[in-house]
Amino acid sequence: MIEVNLDISIKKNGFQLLNPLKIMLLKEINKSGSLRIAARQLSISYQHMWISIEEINRYADHPVVVKQRGGSGGGGAVLSDYGKRLINEFTLIENEVEKFVKRMNTEINL
Amino acid sequence: MIEVNLDISIKKNGFQLLNPLKIMLLKEINKSGSLRIAARQLSISYQHMWISIEEINRYADHPVVVKQRGGSGGGGAVLSDYGKRLINEFTLIENEVEKFVKRMNTEINL
Repeated sequence: MIEVNLDISIKKNGFQLLNPLKIMLLKEINKSGSLRIAARQLSISYQHMWISIEEINRYADHPVVVKQRGGSGGGGAVLSDYGKRLINEFTLIENEVEKFVKRMNTEINL
Repeated sequence: MIEVNLDISIKKNGFQLLNPLKIMLLKEINKSGSLRIAARQLSISYQHMWISIEEINRYADHPVVVKQRGGSGGGGAVLSDYGKRLINEFTLIENEVEKFVKRMNTEINL
């Protein structure tokens, strides 16, 4: 079966700010309130998680993940309102792209 | 400036058959009639070109690049009618995706 595939990313001034993997990180942080737990859930290293989040926070127009120091387990992390908006917008885009790809795949002639 | 980016590929049974780079190879072969000249034009190694073309030919439903043995310069390579159709269809898809992305980028709210 031959089909069109579209990989979504959000760029800011040419730099890749978001892609499906990064959105998955944000969703998991939103769920767990902790970088460490989110990293464990997604089977990635804490370092990978930390670097990805630093990168998103640095390049985004507003803070996305807000780290909270102290407490048991070394402090939590919550999504800002802007971070939640990024997830929502990305999900809307994914839905639009999915519909578009379905239409393309009925028209493709290969 | 924040914008949606969509990377196009064509998959066959989950395997990536075509992407913009592979289409560029096919276009250059179509222009030059030679894998070696096409590789030189695109500043890639002959081996990279050869492996890419073997892969496309192996996975596509019909031969895409037809190699011709002998002659000076070690034989030429031409695109089959199916190969030309792949380029045309991919170009149509690129045009549709470009229009779609423009529309998405007027609607995005980030």
